[in-house]
Amino acid sequence: MTAMVGIVLGSDSDLPMMKDAVKVLEKFGITYEMNISSAHRAPDKTAHYARAAESRGMKVIIAAAGLAAHLPGVIAAHTVLPVIGVPVKSGALDGVDALYSIAQMPPGIPVASVAINGAKNAAILAAQIIATTDNSIKEKLYQYKEEMVQEVEAKDAKVKELGVEGYLAV
Amino acid sequence: MTAMVGIVLGSDSDLPMMKDAVKVLEKFGITYEMNISSAHRAPDKTAHYARAAESRGMKVIIAAAGLAAHLPGVIAAHTVLPVIGVPVKSGALDGVDALYSIAQMPPGIPVASVAINGAKNAAILAAQIIATTDNSIKEKLYQYKEEMVQEVEAKDAKVKELGVEGYLAV
Amino acid sequence: MTAMVGIVLGSDSDLPMMKDAVKVLEKFGITYEMNISSAHRAPDKTAHYARAAESRGMKVIIAAAGLAAHLPGVIAAHTVLPVIGVPVKSGALDGVDALYSIAQMPPGIPVASVAINGAKNAAILAAQIIATTDNSIKEKLYQYKEEMVQEVEAKDAKVKELGVEGYLAV
Amino acid sequence: MTAMVGIVLGSDSDLPMMKDAVKVLEKFGITYEMNISSAHRAPDKTAHYARAAESRGMKVIIAAAGLAAHLPGVIAAHTVLPVIGVPVKSGALDGVDALYSIAQMPPGIPVASVAINGAKNAAILAAQIIATTDNSIKEKLYQYKEEMVQEVEAKDAKVKELGVEGYLAV
Amino acid sequence: MTAMVGIVLGSDSDLPMMKDAVKVLEKFGITYEMNISSAHRAPDKTAHYARAAESRGMKVIIAAAGLAAHLPGVIAAHTVLPVIGVPVKSGALDGVDALYSIAQMPPGIPVASVAINGAKNAAILAAQIIATTDNSIKEKLYQYKEEMVQEVEAKDAKVKELGVEGYLAV
Amino acid sequence: MTAMVGIVLGSDSDLPMMKDAVKVLEKFGITYEMNISSAHRAPDKTAHYARAAESRGMKVIIAAAGLAAHLPGVIAAHTVLPVIGVPVKSGALDGVDALYSIAQMPPGIPVASVAINGAKNAAILAAQIIATTDNSIKEKLYQYKEEMVQEVEAKDAKVKELGVEGYLAV
Amino acid sequence: MTAMVGIVLGSDSDLPMMKDAVKVLEKFGITYEMNISSAHRAPDKTAHYARAAESRGMKVIIAAAGLAAHLPGVIAAHTVLPVIGVPVKSGALDGVDALYSIAQMPPGIPVASVAINGAKNAAILAAQIIATTDNSIKEKLYQYKEEMVQEVEAKDAKVKELGVEGYLAV
Amino acid sequence: MTAMVGIVLGSDSDLPMMKDAVKVLEKFGITYEMNISSAHRAPDKTAHYARAAESRGMKVIIAAAGLAAHLPGVIAAHTVLPVIGVPVKSGALDGVDALYSIAQMPPGIPVASVAINGAKNAAILAAQIIATTDNSIKEKLYQYKEEMVQEVEAKDAKVKELGVEGYLAV
Repeated sequence: MTAMVGIVLGSDSDLPMMKDAVKVLEKFGITYEMNISSAHRAPDKTAHYARAAESRGMKVIIAAAGLAAHLPGVIAAHTVLPVIGVPVKSGALDGVDALYSIAQMPPGIPVASVAINGAKNAAILAAQIIATTDNSIKEKLYQYKEEMVQEVEAKDAKVKELGVEGYLAV
Repeated sequence: MTAMVGIVLGSDSDLPMMKDAVKVLEKFGITYEMNISSAHRAPDKTAHYARAAESRGMKVIIAAAGLAAHLPGVIAAHTVLPVIGVPVKSGALDGVDALYSIAQMPPGIPVASVAINGAKNAAILAAQIIATTDNSIKEKLYQYKEEMVQEVEAKDAKVKELGVEGYLAV
Repeated sequence: MTAMVGIVLGSDSDLPMMKDAVKVLEKFGITYEMNISSAHRAPDKTAHYARAAESRGMKVIIAAAGLAAHLPGVIAAHTVLPVIGVPVKSGALDGVDALYSIAQMPPGIPVASVAINGAKNAAILAAQIIATTDNSIKEKLYQYKEEMVQEVEAKDAKVKELGVEGYLAV
Repeated sequence: MTAMVGIVLGSDSDLPMMKDAVKVLEKFGITYEMNISSAHRAPDKTAHYARAAESRGMKVIIAAAGLAAHLPGVIAAHTVLPVIGVPVKSGALDGVDALYSIAQMPPGIPVASVAINGAKNAAILAAQIIATTDNSIKEKLYQYKEEMVQEVEAKDAKVKELGVEGYLAV
Repeated sequence: MTAMVGIVLGSDSDLPMMKDAVKVLEKFGITYEMNISSAHRAPDKTAHYARAAESRGMKVIIAAAGLAAHLPGVIAAHTVLPVIGVPVKSGALDGVDALYSIAQMPPGIPVASVAINGAKNAAILAAQIIATTDNSIKEKLYQYKEEMVQEVEAKDAKVKELGVEGYLAV
Repeated sequence: MTAMVGIVLGSDSDLPMMKDAVKVLEKFGITYEMNISSAHRAPDKTAHYARAAESRGMKVIIAAAGLAAHLPGVIAAHTVLPVIGVPVKSGALDGVDALYSIAQMPPGIPVASVAINGAKNAAILAAQIIATTDNSIKEKLYQYKEEMVQEVEAKDAKVKELGVEGYLAV
Repeated sequence: MTAMVGIVLGSDSDLPMMKDAVKVLEKFGITYEMNISSAHRAPDKTAHYARAAESRGMKVIIAAAGLAAHLPGVIAAHTVLPVIGVPVKSGALDGVDALYSIAQMPPGIPVASVAINGAKNAAILAAQIIATTDNSIKEKLYQYKEEMVQEVEAKDAKVKELGVEGYLAV
Repeated sequence: MTAMVGIVLGSDSDLPMMKDAVKVLEKFGITYEMNISSAHRAPDKTAHYARAAESRGMKVIIAAAGLAAHLPGVIAAHTVLPVIGVPVKSGALDGVDALYSIAQMPPGIPVASVAINGAKNAAILAAQIIATTDNSIKEKLYQYKEEMVQEVEAKDAKVKELGVEGYLAV
């Protein structure tokens, strides 16, 4: 069966960063497939993948790339699926180039940009998109939000109990 | 019946820019409701709207704001719906501040950033999200892509027929 | 008794940086309470805290956050107390995103931005605000200014006595 | 009687921008005095003004300057009053230079930076500082917040009544 | 016969800017063909053009695009011809996004970036590339350099003859 | 007799901006010669001018250029005279490129950078350099400083007399 | 025999970075000569080299420099050969200054800018320029492109076989 | 006897960086005095020093500061001596804030900005200013230029003798 989310990395050096996305998808029980491709070094493979994704049954594509990060935009050019772009921090500009290359897409072909190295949010956004018609994932998103509140509450209680020095000493 | 897309503007001065989104949504037959709210001046109204949107049946929220553009992030904090953020060009920094305030969301609460003043792409992205489980809109997205190809082809043919000077003289 | 200054951190990773503020407040004898909250992950907790602060008797709120740093602005939306925002250096943009998200607040809801990682100045600014009607703290601020002068004088005398090489060798 | 707020402009070309602050202060019934000085062209006048302000009974200083905007920092060097800095949009960098010159103050001497051309927020922030021990101004700040909510509500109702086209046609 | 230089514009709005390139190519007697295509809206047309260019006998491709300017990089992905990229000034970021999207190409697929709106230099660079094995164009490049010297000399002589006021009055 | 200050413009389009420098030099009675040259289009002329300047008796060179503004650095490479660089606001980057090209000179060959379009300050700086051994110009610099103080005092008195509205109405 | 490509470094500290270019040129069997010169510290040497390069039979010059990186532009001023500029990451601005100093060349004197530290692409671009009339190198460029595809395919197959964790564990 | 050059540091943490300037001044036999002061923490000391410098017989002031680097501008406000500003790399913005705070001085009060951390060039520039009427230092500047040429020549000869690998292996 086709995965719900296709992840495409412009380079295998992006894999460690993308593990944050994988963990979130697995937590939500969302199937994914991991691909390494490149808008520049393997353009036909990339185009082929993007063109086939929707008819294969995929719902969302997450694409990550650094520098002049064309990968998300090139994929978006070949599909009607929502494409989430993750600008990767790399090179001398630390990812500002990638952010501009992904966020500033011209009219007609959108890419949903998340933060530089924002792999985790890319996965949550994919889950939110799938959840628009999947109540079980929607339920998990509500739980996830609740867990975040509790985690904040716990830290807040801890700093009040231990004080700044105590908190940092633990 | 609840609209499929909720549009929230941080200021009515963003309305002319957002007309590009409205045209696209109407072209795709996607219902929307237009709201003016503010993360800062009307925080409770904004939170209330965001919290109610999913249970009212909405699918996607588009939020546009300029300067320290907190609106999309604040809405995302209160909903599990996908939130598309449109950074608005305004003020001395021409929207770079808004782009950073929207794209650089911290882990846990994603916002899907489009380009500065990218209202049109926000609407297409909303359509793509809805199309993940709506074949009639998916079909329209394929048509839209085809129309873009034809528009490019027509301009290309025209510049070849008329030459640069001729094209510009028309 | 309610603290005079409420400090709110968007993340417990900001605690070490905020110790500079704590030291200053303690030096001036200004009471404070340390909170961990989040504009995005715990929006209701944040709003509740901000709304209650003034009636609880607090005078100033210091809020620190990184990335798309909405925390100070969101707090300011819910209170009439002066809110001092500390942009935190973090992520690929090293805090420029936080600075823009805090300093570029739209008209109507001010935040007093200090420098990136400027926790110490946030505390001194809080002291200055409180000192507008508290002569004992005002007196301490004058002493603090005098101590800074003397510290500069001492270093200046030392470099003149020891020379550049001597100073650096100590 | 000494004004509660001292406004200092680095140039008379900043006067039109600063009118937004004057209107707010007058609305809140806060007395002010308008000064034109310069950290560079009239350094002694500036230092003298800053040194005298607190003992004259002033509560807050608002200083606006463009380019390498040293005025707020230089004033802060000479007073223990809270100093609000307004970076002015001018020159080739459109105020980014002024923002950095004001927000990035080194430890020891804080300046409360507002947005580029953020004169209005500077005045509201001054009011908030004064309101920490002035209940009548605090009351007006609550009213001001309420008026902002109502203004947003009115615009929101109008766009729903008239539609996008109708709203823009008015 | 195939043109020596293929010019590809991402949008017909780039035509006026690209006239500077056309004039230079015509001055040097270098044949060119003008195309309108788009990496995003017409990706297959773009790929097809790029793949065929070398075997058709072309020598250089000039590609111009604004915003997230993927066009030059996408063309370079499909050809071994040298590709000159012209970042176009457009949108809120005035072409910095395009410059980064073009200049910061990842290793393996080079693009030769010229300045934002640097159409004229793109054409001269194309002429220089062709001139590496074409002595008549090389000769014209030497003449062009000489003309530039003479033009500078003439202006220098004129300002010395007329003075600053006189020069500006003419 | 050789002028004391050599002004070199990379383009005659910089002449109107440079009039501010000319006025200051004439006010101080400092002789100057105006040249149009170019580091790129007329490199030999530029090198020749720079190499000859010191032995001709010149004291300071002011060089202005926009974009990749190499002119001041190239001149500095050929002379031991102090070279003042004026970054010109032009092109898509509004002079940030010129500022970086002038201010960020590598070790060994200094250029004294003033602000973008800072022609007036370039002239005053030239006067200050000459005044280090010319008491009559030093005297004029003291007078100039005094005039600036008086101008500020006059404006300050005027705004206090007329009020903000009155001042702006004049 | 003269080398086909002249490489000029502004500093020997750029040598390690430039090894990527050397490897590519050697792989393609393109002769090169390595030079250390400086637009500022050795301007005559640089000008002499640039002026002689074409008549010596060279085809392309690659010039690398950091900070206010004038070297490529100064070389381009003295030759009709295509000049490829490599901005070097160094200093406080991490190479943005070098990118602007190289990419933003004024009209008349082009430089082909590659990415910051983009030595490898500079060499490939040089090969592409030479290949416009050298079929054996053109053939090698096609092979190089094919190798890049295969490398991507191999990594893609590997991540699919081993999974994310497995891939990273190898 | 008064030193020819006064060096003023905003912080003793700038001392190691400023050693580059000290070495150059000593090489040229230029006397200097090292001061630690601060525009913000010790404003009166700074003003006093600046006001007295010229009448004490000093020729040039070098002032270094980081962050919102007001020190050079504040000194320039109080003297007619040429003031050379050295922006210091420090804090989250790596010295861009200091560069803008120093280079973008408003009309009337010039500062001669060198590169971020450009202490060495500040000293050479000081020497150039003094050399405008001191032939022995002028002679040393010519020698210094010649040494730089020879150093470049030596490195160039070495890389040609040893090759890239050999050079790096030494």
